[in-house]
This record gives sequence, C-alpha cells and structure tokens, in this order.
Amino acid sequence: MEELSLALDLIGTFVFALSGALAGVKRGLDLFGVLVLSFAAANAGGITRDLLIGAVPPAAFHDLRYLGTSLFAGLVTFYFASLIVRLSNAVLLFDAAGLAFFAVAGASKALDHGLSPVMAVVLGMVTGIGGGMVRDVLLTEIPTVLRAELYAVAALVAATVVVIGHLLHLPVAPVTITALILCFGLRVMAIRYRWQLPVAKFAKQSDVTAKDGNNPEKF
Amino acid sequence: MEELSLALDLIGTFVFALSGALAGVKRGLDLFGVLVLSFAAANAGGITRDLLIGAVPPAAFHDLRYLGTSLFAGLVTFYFASLIVRLSNAVLLFDAAGLAFFAVAGASKALDHGLSPVMAVVLGMVTGIGGGMVRDVLLTEIPTVLRAELYAVAALVAATVVVIGHLLHLPVAPVTITALILCFGLRVMAIRYRWQLPVAKFAKQSDVTAKDGNNPEKF
Amino acid sequence: MEELSLALDLIGTFVFALSGALAGVKRGLDLFGVLVLSFAAANAGGITRDLLIGAVPPAAFHDLRYLGTSLFAGLVTFYFASLIVRLSNAVLLFDAAGLAFFAVAGASKALDHGLSPVMAVVLGMVTGIGGGMVRDVLLTEIPTVLRAELYAVAALVAATVVVIGHLLHLPVAPVTITALILCFGLRVMAIRYRWQLPVAKFAKQSDVTAKDGNNPEKF
Repeated sequence: MEELSLALDLIGTFVFALSGALAGVKRGLDLFGVLVLSFAAANAGGITRDLLIGAVPPAAFHDLRYLGTSLFAGLVTFYFASLIVRLSNAVLLFDAAGLAFFAVAGASKALDHGLSPVMAVVLGMVTGIGGGMVRDVLLTEIPTVLRAELYAVAALVAATVVVIGHLLHLPVAPVTITALILCFGLRVMAIRYRWQLPVAKFAKQSDVTAKDGNNPEKF
Repeated sequence: MEELSLALDLIGTFVFALSGALAGVKRGLDLFGVLVLSFAAANAGGITRDLLIGAVPPAAFHDLRYLGTSLFAGLVTFYFASLIVRLSNAVLLFDAAGLAFFAVAGASKALDHGLSPVMAVVLGMVTGIGGGMVRDVLLTEIPTVLRAELYAVAALVAATVVVIGHLLHLPVAPVTITALILCFGLRVMAIRYRWQLPVAKFAKQSDVTAKDGNNPEKF
Repeated sequence: MEELSLALDLIGTFVFALSGALAGVKRGLDLFGVLVLSFAAANAGGITRDLLIGAVPPAAFHDLRYLGTSLFAGLVTFYFASLIVRLSNAVLLFDAAGLAFFAVAGASKALDHGLSPVMAVVLGMVTGIGGGMVRDVLLTEIPTVLRAELYAVAALVAATVVVIGHLLHLPVAPVTITALILCFGLRVMAIRYRWQLPVAKFAKQSDVTAKDGNNPEKF
C-alpha cells in the first residue's frame, strides 16, 4: 500500500512535470528554464501544502526521487517535444490521473497533520492545482485552472471523498480508489463534453470587450 | 475587545474578498476562479505574515470563518457583480477600512511573536497589501499597490502607530483607534485628492512613452 | 571570516536591490513600488530558502541591515537612475558577484540545516536566482533567469563546489574562494561571449515566430 502510494505520487509528479516542461518549451525557454518549469509544475502544489501545514523541509526537498522524476520528465520533453505534443491526448489523461493522486495525497497529509476536515479538503485541492498555477504565473499567464473545465472541482471532489471517508472511519483503500476514480472520471468527462463552470453574466455583457481599453490610468 | 478585533478582521476579509472577486469577474474567470481570487485577496497578506513569523498553520487555515467570509463575498460578487460595481465608491471606502484593520492586526501579531519593532511595521504593511498583490499577480497585472495613491503608506502609518504605542507601553485601545483613523483617513484623502508618491524622473523622461506603446495587447 | 561573509552578503544584497529598483524605475513605478522591488529582488531568494528549511523568521526579517541596505540601494536608484543606467556594465559585474555570494551562502546555510547535498545545491541556486524571479513576476515578465546566459548554471556551479568541499571535509576558506571565482568568472564570460543554454528544437521550428511577432522586444 505504501509503495503503491509512492508509485502513484511519482507518476503524478512525472506527468505534471511533463506539462510544465511542455509549456516552457512552447514559450522558447532555454534548457534550464524548462527544467525549472518541470520542477515547479510538479512540486509547487505539494511544497505550498507542506509550508502551510508546517512540514518543513517539504517532501520535495527531502526525497530525491521527486527532483529526479521532475528533471527526467523535463529532459524528455526538451529533447522529444514534438513527440510529447503528438501524445498530448495521452498527456491530458495522465494529467487527470496526476490531479487525482495529488488531491488524494494532499488531503490525507493535511488530515495527518491535524487540520480540520474543511481545510484538509482545501489543501488537497491546493496540492492538485498549485503546481499548474505557479507554472502559469512564471509564464505570465492567468492560471488555466481559474478558467479550465472543472479542473479544480475534480480535485475538490477527490479531497472531499477522502475527508468524508476519514470522518466515517471507512477503510482507506476503497475510499482512496473511489476518490481517484471520481476525480479522474469527472475530469475526463469535462474535457470530453466541455463541461464548464459558469462565468458571471456581468463579464459576458460588458467588460470582456472593453477590457483591453479600459484601464488607461492604471498603467 | 477580543470580539471587536475579530469583527474588524472579518469585515476586512469580506471587503478584500469583494475586491478580489470583482477583479476576477471583470477578467471573465469562471465561478471557481472568482472564489480563488476572493480567498487570495482576502487572506494572502495574513498567510504570508504567518509563514514569515512561523505561525503555522496560518490563521486562515485554522479558523473557518475566514474561508466562509471569503467565499460568501465571492458568491455575492459573482451573482450581483453589477450591483457591486455600482457601489464601487462604497467598496473603496470599505477597502480603506480593511487596509487599516489588517495593518493594525498584522503589526500586533508580529510584535506578539517577538519580531523587532521595524520588522513588525513591515509585516503590518505586508498583511495589508499582500492580498492585493497576489490578486494582481494571478491576473498578470503589475500590483496596483506599487502604483496606487498612498496605499502602502497608509498601511505603514497604521503599523507604525501600533508599534510606537507598544514601545511606549501606551494603552492598546486608544492607540489602535488612532492607527485605524489615520490609515483610513490618509487613504480616503489620497483617493479624494489624488495624492501620489513621486515617480523617478528617469521614467518620466525616457521610458514611459515607449512602454505604453509597446505592449498594446497586454494592457 | 564571519565578518567577511556578512560583508559579502550585504554587497550582494545591495547589488541585487539595485537591479530590482532599476527594473521598477524603468516600468514607471512610484517610490514605494521601487523600494518594494529593491527589497524583493535582494531578499526573496534568501527568504524562500529560509522558509523551505524552516529557519523562521527569515534572516531578512531578523537583521535590519538587509532591509536598510535594500532601501538605501532603492533610494539611490530612484534619485540617480540615469547614473545607474550609465554604470550598467559595472552593475552587471556586481550582479555576477552578488550571485556568487548568494549561491555560496545559500548552499552553506542549507547544509547547516541538515539538508542533503543535492538539495543544498538546489537551495544555493534558489538563493541566488529567487530574488530576480520574484522581481520579474511582480513586473509581469517571464523571469530572465529562465532565458539568460548561464545565470542559473553559474549559481549551480558555486553551490556544487561548496557542497563537494563540505562532503570531502576540505577547509572552508579556499573552497569558498574557488566557488566565488568560478561562479563570477563563468557568468562574466557568458555575458562577454553570449554563451547560452540550448533551446528545444521544437520551439525554434514552430512557435518562436508566432511568439516573436507579438512581443517583439520582450523575448
């Protein structure tokens, strides 16, 4: 079980690192920049969680396998970028899997550190989405997760299942599997059918067109 | 007194969350993105302070009222954005009040944790302005506070009053009230009369025109 | 030795603060914004390292000299920006020196806190490059270090020398001097001869032209 959990975590790390490296390659970063983005995308969520719950140094600075996995994914992407792009549907599937693993692992770790159930759910979600947010901020893009198809919601669902299972003292293995399947399935369906969260009416009516012109005195 | 302090803190949280949510709505984020911005704008300053002084988990992850208040403000903004926009003068006033509360609370907490007076002032200011900075970075904008009318200065004044009061062992209540009034008043006057800090001559001469013209689609 | 080390650290702080302030002046920030960028550019790397290894409050919040040095550099830049610009070659040299000092100091501190050798190297690099990354993110630019001439590599080399010296129990002084000289020399040579890390072929083929068209001077 412990080993399974580590394996899942490292798969998640690998896939998230691929997504970070690919974003860096597309923006023309050099080799170092690509490796930084791999590491950041794969580990920033977990590092943030660990800083917030006081688990320092964060796991990513303890266990060399996280660094190694991230750098390996970064190098693969750097030298075989066009291959990774051609596999991008597979990458999206792996990314959905990574999200599920990270959300589950994040919520469990927060519970272990004594956080309240609601906050364990929040931290599970942060673990899942934090890496992608840092990746996008480093590339000066508004984080995709603030716009993407149910990305954060899928992480929230997984973390919620873990926390409810914990509160009801249900056995860990089936709860974990349920959480993983729900998160993965929800994310894949959202991509497939383009499920979206609503956008405020206000934005749709008035501001989106005006945006580019309307902050003259601010800058 | 304790209850008053909590009430002020939650009012500040609510108002800062409004400002974050409104910024998110204007940029066309989905519901989740708007809620993330509410939470970040309202709590990132306090979370940063708590991480820096070693108070983990940060208050925002302890006490559910901060999360609840932030999400409530985010939902209100999401569904009644045009109302909030129409009330934007009131929101600016509340924001000035939130800044005052946060700066005072931040400086006090830093003193309680044994930081030096100068650093307590700095952390008071960080508590006041950190949320807005994170909000703007997530939206890929240069933080307003690095340009706005005496925003940070007002926070600095409030934090300085608190720290001086502490050093001179003055009674807490009148010191707090003085700090709040000074910060609020200074900020409101700065908005009303467009008081600004100076900009370097260098920038005015050479760079501003070039700047404004050369990133047309970015701003 | 101790005093030398502090002196080197403060020189690094001063020079990095210059670079932050200059970037702020060029973007037309007000006085406060320029001072925030000085402080962030000079201290964010060390603060990040200290948070990650659990050394809170970070040194920059302990020892007033870091704040004082940063603000002094910011004020000098604000009022004499055109002078600093004319000295920009000298500033680049000082910046290379600052990078060397910070990478060495960061790796040593991480070793003192019991991190593994590999992670001490990573944290030495983070100490060297973190400030510049935060500076660029606050100005909504992709961090230069993800693209610049061997900047991070020079920091990695310095940190690696420190860690190898530590593992082999070599005397500290000559190891430190070697690390400093290597980092400084590598960075200066890289600037002089425009040494670059490779960029992925994928980016060169397909994406760079599209990219270059819409932000011409930025990339």
